[in-house]
Amino acid sequence: MAGLVLVTYDWVPEMPRGYVRDIRARWALEEAGLAYRVESTPFKDRGPGHLAHQPFGQVPWLTDGDISIFESGAILLHIGNLSDTLLPAGPRGRSEAVEWLFAALNSVEMASLPWALLKFWGDTGETVAGTRFGDFLKGRLDRMEQVLAKREWLAGSFSVADIMMADVLRLPNRFDALKDHPACKAYVERATARPAFKKAYAGQMAHFAAAD
Amino acid sequence: MAGLVLVTYDWVPEMPRGYVRDIRARWALEEAGLAYRVESTPFKDRGPGHLAHQPFGQVPWLTDGDISIFESGAILLHIGNLSDTLLPAGPRGRSEAVEWLFAALNSVEMASLPWALLKFWGDTGETVAGTRFGDFLKGRLDRMEQVLAKREWLAGSFSVADIMMADVLRLPNRFDALKDHPACKAYVERATARPAFKKAYAGQMAHFAAAD
Repeated sequence: MAGLVLVTYDWVPEMPRGYVRDIRARWALEEAGLAYRVESTPFKDRGPGHLAHQPFGQVPWLTDGDISIFESGAILLHIGNLSDTLLPAGPRGRSEAVEWLFAALNSVEMASLPWALLKFWGDTGETVAGTRFGDFLKGRLDRMEQVLAKREWLAGSFSVADIMMADVLRLPNRFDALKDHPACKAYVERATARPAFKKAYAGQMAHFAAAD
Repeated sequence: MAGLVLVTYDWVPEMPRGYVRDIRARWALEEAGLAYRVESTPFKDRGPGHLAHQPFGQVPWLTDGDISIFESGAILLHIGNLSDTLLPAGPRGRSEAVEWLFAALNSVEMASLPWALLKFWGDTGETVAGTRFGDFLKGRLDRMEQVLAKREWLAGSFSVADIMMADVLRLPNRFDALKDHPACKAYVERATARPAFKKAYAGQMAHFAAAD
């Protein structure tokens, strides 16, 4: 009876705090009302024990009894399956939530991550639009703007897809890249105003602060 | 009784032929032995009818009765659920296949796509390692090399995760970026030697050739 255990780094630098991907899992676990505990793995020493759970040396991973799961998308799908509310029950609604879960990662984060990496690497000239990766991101945000102008949540009711999409959009929002996409910005604000997000965020910040 | 319908562009330029993402779905459908037909949507005119099925104006999408699914990851998961062989039956094996399906997209393609985009945009100096996006890709390939040196397929037996990972690795391989990663290269060769891949590849090439 090990229960659900979420593993994240013991410490990270200031910059990624509040954005480490364990927040997606924490948020989903809080929304689902599932009991879990958080354990740490060394940030500075990612040895074989780490790689056995997360082959890319990243975090988080989630253990559920004898099952260990890496990749935030797979973790959210697993939590969605354990929850009564985070994945629609009908095949059509469920399929819609799953496709948007993938879309958050593969159509939006696929474009926002390279752009954000250039920012982290110090490319101050990399704006939204007018640069190659900026245009790539803008194209995806323009599509999301159309979608989010017409709906509150991606798949009928709030689901794991919204946790993923809102968390993905938090990164460009951090760099003020949603200012010409008001529906995207309002969606991030709506999602992160939820008590479960606030609890997850506070939990991650406290976890890393405790290591200072 | 509409059956499974896979929708792709009516035509694409020479460059992406053989790499358009409908190949992932075709490959999975062929592996699963499921009956399907292919329909076309205009490449040059992506109107509201297209966006209703694929909000980013891309392809493919798959319809299964009244369910329409976009995102290659979601499509492969759907086909895996319809198949007797492409997703392990036990919860642990199934979880492993699902996490690797996400990993192919989010840990590997997340690094290979920006690098490949720079290639497509004409950055001939963008090598594997020694450049920022090149180092990002190399880091992920180094991890995959460790994994693939020890196993034939990612989740016990051949699964949707292998279709996704092998297809993702085909792109850097096209630009000779796997030459220092022999286990990754051998894996791509092993996967694409399967009759189902060959049939899917020939099907995509014939589809676009018919439009010339």
